[in-house]
Amino acid sequence: MTDTTTDTVGVVDVRARAESFGDGHEAAEILASARLCVDPELRRAIDSLPGSMRRIALYHFGWEHADGTPAAGHAGKAIRPALVLAAVRALGGEPAMAVRAAAAVELTHNFTLLHDDVMDRDTTRRHRPTAWTVFGDSDAILAGDALQALAQRLLAEDPHPGASAAAARLAACVVELCAGQHADGVLERRRPDEVTLEECLAMAEAKTGALLGCACALGALYAGAGREEVDALDAFGREAGLAFQLIDDVIGIWGDPGRTGKPARADLAARKKSLPVVAALASGTPASVELAALYAGVPGEGDLERVAGAVERAGGRDWAQGHAADRMSRAIGQLARAVPVPESAGGLLALAEFVTRRTH
Amino acid sequence: MTDTTTDTVGVVDVRARAESFGDGHEAAEILASARLCVDPELRRAIDSLPGSMRRIALYHFGWEHADGTPAAGHAGKAIRPALVLAAVRALGGEPAMAVRAAAAVELTHNFTLLHDDVMDRDTTRRHRPTAWTVFGDSDAILAGDALQALAQRLLAEDPHPGASAAAARLAACVVELCAGQHADGVLERRRPDEVTLEECLAMAEAKTGALLGCACALGALYAGAGREEVDALDAFGREAGLAFQLIDDVIGIWGDPGRTGKPARADLAARKKSLPVVAALASGTPASVELAALYAGVPGEGDLERVAGAVERAGGRDWAQGHAADRMSRAIGQLARAVPVPESAGGLLALAEFVTRRTH
Repeated sequence: MTDTTTDTVGVVDVRARAESFGDGHEAAEILASARLCVDPELRRAIDSLPGSMRRIALYHFGWEHADGTPAAGHAGKAIRPALVLAAVRALGGEPAMAVRAAAAVELTHNFTLLHDDVMDRDTTRRHRPTAWTVFGDSDAILAGDALQALAQRLLAEDPHPGASAAAARLAACVVELCAGQHADGVLERRRPDEVTLEECLAMAEAKTGALLGCACALGALYAGAGREEVDALDAFGREAGLAFQLIDDVIGIWGDPGRTGKPARADLAARKKSLPVVAALASGTPASVELAALYAGVPGEGDLERVAGAVERAGGRDWAQGHAADRMSRAIGQLARAVPVPESAGGLLALAEFVTRRTH
Repeated sequence: MTDTTTDTVGVVDVRARAESFGDGHEAAEILASARLCVDPELRRAIDSLPGSMRRIALYHFGWEHADGTPAAGHAGKAIRPALVLAAVRALGGEPAMAVRAAAAVELTHNFTLLHDDVMDRDTTRRHRPTAWTVFGDSDAILAGDALQALAQRLLAEDPHPGASAAAARLAACVVELCAGQHADGVLERRRPDEVTLEECLAMAEAKTGALLGCACALGALYAGAGREEVDALDAFGREAGLAFQLIDDVIGIWGDPGRTGKPARADLAARKKSLPVVAALASGTPASVELAALYAGVPGEGDLERVAGAVERAGGRDWAQGHAADRMSRAIGQLARAVPVPESAGGLLALAEFVTRRTH
C-alpha cells in the first residue's frame, strides 16, 4: 500500500481514502463551509447589479421574496464552488485565493438555471416558483445574461495569475453548456426509439459534466497546476458529473417525493428520456417493448407505476446505478493521475461520493 | 487655430476637422475597412462553436441561409468595431493589435440583438426574419448566450496587456445593457403620460450609449491610455450614442421605407414611446393634447399621418434633432479632453458624424 510507483496502486490509495468519507458527513461539512466562504463574495457581486437585475437575482438565489423582503433562502447545495475550493486544496493551493473563481462558477451555474427554466417551462426550482413565473420571461432572460457577465467580471478583475486562463475556460464551458441544452431539447422532441444511449450520455456530459469538470479545472488553475493536471481535474469532474446525472435520473423516477420536493415519478409523468429510461428502451427485453408502448401513450396516474416497473424490469435502474459506479471509478482514476498526495484529494472524493450516494 | 493651450480652442480644432468628414465618405471607408479587419476574427470565433450554435450564429450574421447554404449576407454596419479601432488610432495605439477586442464588442452587440428580438417579438432584422422566428425562442436564447461567452473568451485568450481591463469593462457594460433593456420594457408598458423624457434618455443611454461608449473605452485601453482618457472616450461614445439613438428615432417616424427596409411610420404604428414622441407629449402644446388622444386609441392607416403631424407640430422632431446636435457637441468636447493630437481623432469624428447624419 505504500508503493506509489504504479498508477494502479495510486488508484487504490485514493480509493481507500474515498471510502473513509462514505457516510457523507465530511461532504456536508465541506459544502457548508464552501457556502460560508462563497456567499459573501456572491452577495457582494449581486449587490453591485442595478436594482432591476439585483431584485431578480436575489429572488432566484432565495435571499429575497418576490416582494423584495428578505428570505432565509436556500441558494442550492454549492457543489460547484465546493469543487473549485477542494480542487485548489487537492493540488496544494490556497483555497482562500480562489473564492472569486468559486463565486464565478456558481454565478455561471445560476445563469444557466434561469435560462433553462424559461426554455423548459419549469415552474419550480429549489421548492419555489421559478423566476420567469414571477417576473416574466424577459426579466428572467436578462437576469441570466447579467449573471453570466458578472461571473466574467469577477474573473477579469481578479489579479490572481490563474484568472485569465480560468476566464477562457469558463467561457468555453458556457458554449458547451449551451450546446448541451440545445441537444436536450432536440432529444426530447424525438420519438423514444429514435434516441440512442450514446446521444443521451453525450448530452448529459455537455449539460452537466462540463461545468463540474470546469469547476475542478478552475481550482487546478488557481493552484498553479500545469496543463496535464488541469485536464485530469476536468476529466475527474466530468466523470463525477455523469455519475451525478445518472443518480439524479434514478431519483427522478424512484425518489421519495417527501425528500425531493417534486411529485413522485415526475420524470416519467413528463415522459422525459432520462438515462435509465433510454437504457431500458434499448435493452431488447420484453419489458422494453412494454415500456415503448406505455411511453407512446398519454400518461395516467396508475400508469406511472407500471412505467417505473417496466424500466426496472428492463434493467434501466440497475444499468444506471452500475454505470454511475463505473463513472465514479473512472473519476477516481483521473484524480489519481493529477494528485500526488492522495490525502489532499479527500475533499474532492468526499464531494464526488456525496453527489452519487444522495437520495434526493 | 494653432493655439492648443485652451480646451475651447481644442474643441474648435477638432470640430473643424469633423466638418471635413461631413459628407460621410470617409466614414463609409472606415466602416468598410473595419468590416474587413474584424470579419476574419469573427468568422474564426464563430467557426469554433459546436455545430448547433454555429448554425444559428451564421444565420444571424447573414453568412448562411436558414438551410445552411452560404449567403452573401449583410452583418450590419460594424459601427462598434470601427469605434474600437478608431479609438485605438486616436490615442496613438496600433489598431491591428485590437482586432480581437473589436470582434468581442461586435459579438456582444449581436448577443444582445438575438435576445432583444426574442423579448420584443421583433420579426425582422437586417431585412431578414429574426433568428427566433427561424430556430425558435430557445435556440435564439442559447445562441445569444454562446456569443456572450465567445466575446469574453476572445478577450480572456488575448495576451494584450489591456485585455483584462477590457474584459471587465465589457462585462460591466453587458450588465448595463440588460438594465437598459429591462427599463425599455417597463416604459413601454406604462401609459404615455406616465413616462418622463429623463427616464427615456436614461434608458437610451443604458441600452444604446453604454456599448458605444464601451467600444471607445476598449480602444483607449488597447492604446495603453490612462484612466482619464479611457473615461473620456467612454463619455464620447455615450454622447455620440445618444445622438445616434435620437436620429434613429427620427428615422423611425419620418424615414423613407424604401431606404430603412421597415414599414413607414413603424414606430408610431407600434405606439413606441420613442424620444421625439415623449418630447412632443411633454411639450404642453395643443398638438401634444391631440397626440395624447391619438396615442390612446388603436392605430389606423390614415391615423399614422395625423400622429406624425402632431409629433412634428408639438416640436418633437425639432427637439430630437436639436438635442442630437447638442449631444454631438458634448461628445466632441469629451474627445478633445482625451486626444492630444486632433488630427488623429478624425476617424472617431467621422464615425460620430456618420451615425448622426444618416437617413436610414
